[in-house]
Amino acid sequence: MSIQETLQKILKQVKAGIHPSDLLELIDDLNDQQRKELFELLSDEEAALIIQEMEEFDQVSLLRLLTKHRASAILKEMAADDAADLLGELSPEEVKELLSLIEEEAEEIRGLLKYPEDSAGGIMTTDFIALSEDITVEEAIIRLREVAPGTEIIYYVYVIDSQTKLSGVLSLRDLIAAEDGTFLQEIMYRNVISATAQMDQEEVARIVARYDLLAVPVVDEEQRLLGIITVDDIIDVIEEEATEDIYRLAGTGEVEGVNILEASVISIASKRMPWLLICLVGGLFSGSIIGAFEATLQSIVVLAVFIPVIMDMGGNVGTQSSTLFVRGLATGEIDNKDVWRYFFREIKVGFSMGIINGAVIAVAAWFWQGIPALGLVVGVSMFITIILAALIGTLVPMVFNYYGIDPAISAGPFVTTIKDVTGLLIYFYTASIFIKYLV
Amino acid sequence: MSIQETLQKILKQVKAGIHPSDLLELIDDLNDQQRKELFELLSDEEAALIIQEMEEFDQVSLLRLLTKHRASAILKEMAADDAADLLGELSPEEVKELLSLIEEEAEEIRGLLKYPEDSAGGIMTTDFIALSEDITVEEAIIRLREVAPGTEIIYYVYVIDSQTKLSGVLSLRDLIAAEDGTFLQEIMYRNVISATAQMDQEEVARIVARYDLLAVPVVDEEQRLLGIITVDDIIDVIEEEATEDIYRLAGTGEVEGVNILEASVISIASKRMPWLLICLVGGLFSGSIIGAFEATLQSIVVLAVFIPVIMDMGGNVGTQSSTLFVRGLATGEIDNKDVWRYFFREIKVGFSMGIINGAVIAVAAWFWQGIPALGLVVGVSMFITIILAALIGTLVPMVFNYYGIDPAISAGPFVTTIKDVTGLLIYFYTASIFIKYLV
Repeated sequence: MSIQETLQKILKQVKAGIHPSDLLELIDDLNDQQRKELFELLSDEEAALIIQEMEEFDQVSLLRLLTKHRASAILKEMAADDAADLLGELSPEEVKELLSLIEEEAEEIRGLLKYPEDSAGGIMTTDFIALSEDITVEEAIIRLREVAPGTEIIYYVYVIDSQTKLSGVLSLRDLIAAEDGTFLQEIMYRNVISATAQMDQEEVARIVARYDLLAVPVVDEEQRLLGIITVDDIIDVIEEEATEDIYRLAGTGEVEGVNILEASVISIASKRMPWLLICLVGGLFSGSIIGAFEATLQSIVVLAVFIPVIMDMGGNVGTQSSTLFVRGLATGEIDNKDVWRYFFREIKVGFSMGIINGAVIAVAAWFWQGIPALGLVVGVSMFITIILAALIGTLVPMVFNYYGIDPAISAGPFVTTIKDVTGLLIYFYTASIFIKYLV
Repeated sequence: MSIQETLQKILKQVKAGIHPSDLLELIDDLNDQQRKELFELLSDEEAALIIQEMEEFDQVSLLRLLTKHRASAILKEMAADDAADLLGELSPEEVKELLSLIEEEAEEIRGLLKYPEDSAGGIMTTDFIALSEDITVEEAIIRLREVAPGTEIIYYVYVIDSQTKLSGVLSLRDLIAAEDGTFLQEIMYRNVISATAQMDQEEVARIVARYDLLAVPVVDEEQRLLGIITVDDIIDVIEEEATEDIYRLAGTGEVEGVNILEASVISIASKRMPWLLICLVGGLFSGSIIGAFEATLQSIVVLAVFIPVIMDMGGNVGTQSSTLFVRGLATGEIDNKDVWRYFFREIKVGFSMGIINGAVIAVAAWFWQGIPALGLVVGVSMFITIILAALIGTLVPMVFNYYGIDPAISAGPFVTTIKDVTGLLIYFYTASIFIKYLV
């Protein structure tokens, strides 16, 4: 398909009302000049719908291809929260210039821009419906029919009292099901579950998941409605947070938020480097343990053969322990009050796994090298290393968590280094005790 | 708080209409006898609402405390999809007995039970509204008002044609906004995005996330509506799949689906053991590489000092590469068609990181041990090890993915073993080449 054909195909699909997210792959194949051409052929509204579906880096580069005038016209058509998110990626000068061209919607976007990107305020939209509690169901439905064409989300109707405080919520279904003439305050649900603007997006996601909500209202300290967060944005948050945790657990946290397919080699490498350098220092430190036992190793070189298995097993158990604990905290399966109970159970798990693996490796080492004492040394070391790995793998993230640092960060290089050092120390120390039986 | 007080508190909160998921923590504190007592005091409907929010293992143990008669009465009150999920955890005999007591709803539940647990059919509910396309908006709203009290989800109204095939969809908002007298077929959205009953739940989640849906219809081969999947269940799927990936990446995949706080020490340990045993064999295999170079090591024992840093760095780079690739595939950031492009970029990233880390460790080794040639050996080995770790860390999951096996599984013990073996081989082989400059 030639580029001209792709362009025509995209245009045709836009006019046919194809869901904009289905166009992204086609747009991916266009270069900057062609993208510019395409967006010049689209209406502001069509352009806004497509841009809303794009990844942030693509949004920014596209917006910069257009004139400021056009860009502001498209921003105006976007949902206020999406527009604010996009502007959050631009320089303050660009934001100022673009907002100056937008007029009335600018105030709304400016209001959203003041919240941190990953707070409830940062992901909420101001596109919601609030009705007074002293109107009837009939009046409410008339009001909804008026605003429906221009409002995106109306499956929840929020109810406010005479002081404009959030006092209740109704689903559209409740309204439809109610008798005409009923006042909203008679049928509204009063225990509204809400978020505050400062709340971390992860916490909001937990609320939505816990109560199976389609949207959650965001309120200020006086319980006044500031906006709502819809479930589609919550899905993005959940995926984002899972990716962040996965990357941090793998010791490559900084790559989060980078387009891993399009980013340059240098940018990816430089984001991964800090973790590697920590790991490098840790590895040298572990090596210094071996250095300290050089004399032992010199007299019985075969000890080196079991360095990898001690390190790998300690590593695997440590990773398992950290991962189970960190993920348990993230999903809420482990509560802060359960932490110590979990910790002691984990030590018992480590004990059981240590016994079995210690026994297996003891027999393996004995028969492989034909030295019974070597089996004993490797087995005992393996046993202790596994218990300690389970302990350290849980304790280090616990400490991070206690001090309010994301425990996922600790699971990579930190746990690796601590359990390598302890594992090797135990191994060589045990060996030096039994050295006369080994040579 | 005494148990009796807890019981009273729960009962009071149930009657006050507190969201059932807020009661779970209180119920957690009760023992089996007390739970039985509590549920005997609740109505079938109240009990059903609470049970629906519980984890599957808790649901099963609770249900087994009750008489078959009571259990079936509660199942009857549950949403059909939740009831089917619960029954899926019981023995065929129990299912048969319970269903025989339920009567009319049994057919619906039986229909749901035939789909695999993690397929679209397995997570769908049959609680949806389908209207004929040749009725008017007014008639539709009257119909909705009739069914609203008994139906859970009515923000989407599905439209079927004269052959009962799914032909369109309307949001409640579209209906509210439309003029009376309009026929549904005039305003319905015809490009309905749907799932098939056999579709994997992960794929359904991707569809819902991609198109920002609140629910997705499930159809058979003839495009007949079988059920719908709501976004709250999709959120559970996304969390479940992320947890599964995280556990597999950490080499502890089997623990998925276990209550990590309540499960016994033996059950947790035995789920983690298979991965450890693979790792143990891998570690011994890596050790045999060192064994093969025993003579080299004997003549220059200081070589052992750099074994940990070579292994750790290879490990970290390999984990980074596997994780980025596996997560990229899972979120759809890396498409199957981009795989090779990603692979070659990753090798370049490995090259850059190898150069820098190789140079750093070369200088460090030289100055630490005072042997220039040792710096060269360690530096070159580190450089090659890192490139290979990036290559292997991406290639192994690629192969798993190509053969339809979850690539996350490969990232644990398999990648560890392969990159340990290659790393150590490169290190000792390089050392044996330069041996005369080392001693």
